[in-house]
Amino acid sequence: MTNPVPDIATGQSQALPAIFRRYRSDISAALRQSLDSDDLPLYQMLRYSMGWADHDGSPTTATEGKALRPTLCLLACEATGGPASRALPAAVSLELIHNFSLIHDDIQDRDETRHHRPTVWAVWGEPKALVAGNTLRAIADMALWRRVDEALTAGEALRVAALLTEAYLEMIEGQYLDISYEGRHDIGIADYLNMVSKKTGALIRCALSLGALIGTRDEATFEAFRSCGRSLGFVFQIQDDVLGIWGQEEATGKPVGADILRKKSTLPVVFTMSEAGGKDKRSLQQIYRGQAVGEQEVASVLDIMGRVGARQYAHDLAAEHHKRALDALESVELSPELRQDMKDVADFLLVREH
Amino acid sequence: MTNPVPDIATGQSQALPAIFRRYRSDISAALRQSLDSDDLPLYQMLRYSMGWADHDGSPTTATEGKALRPTLCLLACEATGGPASRALPAAVSLELIHNFSLIHDDIQDRDETRHHRPTVWAVWGEPKALVAGNTLRAIADMALWRRVDEALTAGEALRVAALLTEAYLEMIEGQYLDISYEGRHDIGIADYLNMVSKKTGALIRCALSLGALIGTRDEATFEAFRSCGRSLGFVFQIQDDVLGIWGQEEATGKPVGADILRKKSTLPVVFTMSEAGGKDKRSLQQIYRGQAVGEQEVASVLDIMGRVGARQYAHDLAAEHHKRALDALESVELSPELRQDMKDVADFLLVREH
Repeated sequence: MTNPVPDIATGQSQALPAIFRRYRSDISAALRQSLDSDDLPLYQMLRYSMGWADHDGSPTTATEGKALRPTLCLLACEATGGPASRALPAAVSLELIHNFSLIHDDIQDRDETRHHRPTVWAVWGEPKALVAGNTLRAIADMALWRRVDEALTAGEALRVAALLTEAYLEMIEGQYLDISYEGRHDIGIADYLNMVSKKTGALIRCALSLGALIGTRDEATFEAFRSCGRSLGFVFQIQDDVLGIWGQEEATGKPVGADILRKKSTLPVVFTMSEAGGKDKRSLQQIYRGQAVGEQEVASVLDIMGRVGARQYAHDLAAEHHKRALDALESVELSPELRQDMKDVADFLLVREH
Repeated sequence: MTNPVPDIATGQSQALPAIFRRYRSDISAALRQSLDSDDLPLYQMLRYSMGWADHDGSPTTATEGKALRPTLCLLACEATGGPASRALPAAVSLELIHNFSLIHDDIQDRDETRHHRPTVWAVWGEPKALVAGNTLRAIADMALWRRVDEALTAGEALRVAALLTEAYLEMIEGQYLDISYEGRHDIGIADYLNMVSKKTGALIRCALSLGALIGTRDEATFEAFRSCGRSLGFVFQIQDDVLGIWGQEEATGKPVGADILRKKSTLPVVFTMSEAGGKDKRSLQQIYRGQAVGEQEVASVLDIMGRVGARQYAHDLAAEHHKRALDALESVELSPELRQDMKDVADFLLVREH
């Protein structure tokens, strides 16, 4: 195997790779600049949603997110030959679209907390949260238009906008499928993977595509990064699903079995539904069709998942996509340092604990 | 007075002006093309929201909307020298953004019917309706990107996109203000007009601006149409407010006093609150602060509005903006036919009954 895969048991590479630190201050400054308007309390809601301010507008010590998508975008741009700074408007746009989707997702799912803080709708009510999300979406566009000529030509900005819109539309279609699957426990693995490749995968794939689009005019290189992004999207989401079930509360902020408590049909559940037989299958169906899930049911589901090897299955599938992601870049000329950066990010996505 | 204003009493020009018929089939075809994907039931929701299909997907005889914004956009393009067809992608974008805002508005306001049909959220539930709205917003962008080169150059498409995003952002800010004003009855006329100039005005202003942007490179002409659009936005919304109170049910689909029943603070209400004195003021405050509004309260409010002349006030203000809209075009060279078309549209907006 060309690219060794970090092991599930040792979990090396959990620390945030250096590349995240390298771009952090540029990304953070550009994001803050995009939201520095003071016109309306609306913008205060947005600064809150980004983790920069408390609900009363005072600065907060809440940690900012990892900025995964912007980091991938800048890295792809640098790796393909462009200065990372040219990809900054696109990176900002991506992160704002991601955050917009979180605000609307929380409304849809009626989630009251995110990263240990009340969600936007939980603080300001649903109508304002809906509007705040839409605003963030519009500001994501503005972030792009305002930097045309300075960072990008009109033609480039249009291609960036078209790719972003496509990814955005795919993300929404994924959200739609996700909602449609709610309460259904007959979803197959292929259906599930198709849904997450849209819902989560689209923006991650787009991050690498946009970086490469801005960094190079070589179509093959662009396609390689796009393909790498497609696989990384799966690595990210599958590990997310693993953490939703086996993640430790001190790292994720959610109890072990959180997604079982919420009866979310994530990959380990979909797999276990299809693999479990006899008594296990009947127990599972009873639990997932029943009203409330408590500690006892969580323990039962975890037991059944253990018997069918759901965690190992999920990890193996993620590892396969991890390998594909790096293999996609094999044919691309990259400096050893930047290739290592890409590998570090891929490794991190596979074994991260939060 | 250069431009005679249709009279409130005679209400001439209520029929839809010819210009709406001239563009209708082009607009309708382009809109339908933008939504003809069959991939997901999601698109069925969108076709329903546009009035083309029933909730089960079967064709409907529900009448399509007036397509006011696309019509204004094409007319402005033609009037400023371009073929109307070049403005079609922008016109489609505008109408989709307008319809997107209706889907989300209905969620925010918990409105269960629109144009005699159940609203999208009332049929499919809120999470799916939220996603459907977001999809329409994304398709509005796609409608633009897909026609670059064919109808517009990259530079033009970017300016169109920037104007659309600005208008969209203003519209959302207006929605935010509108929500903030809910339950408050101390809103002044200036505050109210500022809110509607954003919430409704932005897209109407944008319709004329975009048409002129595509039709001409003359900055003064562009500004004239933009200014005309600003005034037409007020004419449109003020008449909307008048119809919300005095509109006839057979035309509007809503009972007389509909906005009083819903305790919406529209212009006649804001005006009456500021003008009424003594016993009338106390009655008003009691009604608007109370729980439920019934037939008796509607009758009382209508009486008070009659005493302070709220309808005449609203009509006069609309007529003033009608005049400003046409005056803004005085300095622009227009064919007599196209100037008449602009006047017909302005007249229609002032006296329309639905």
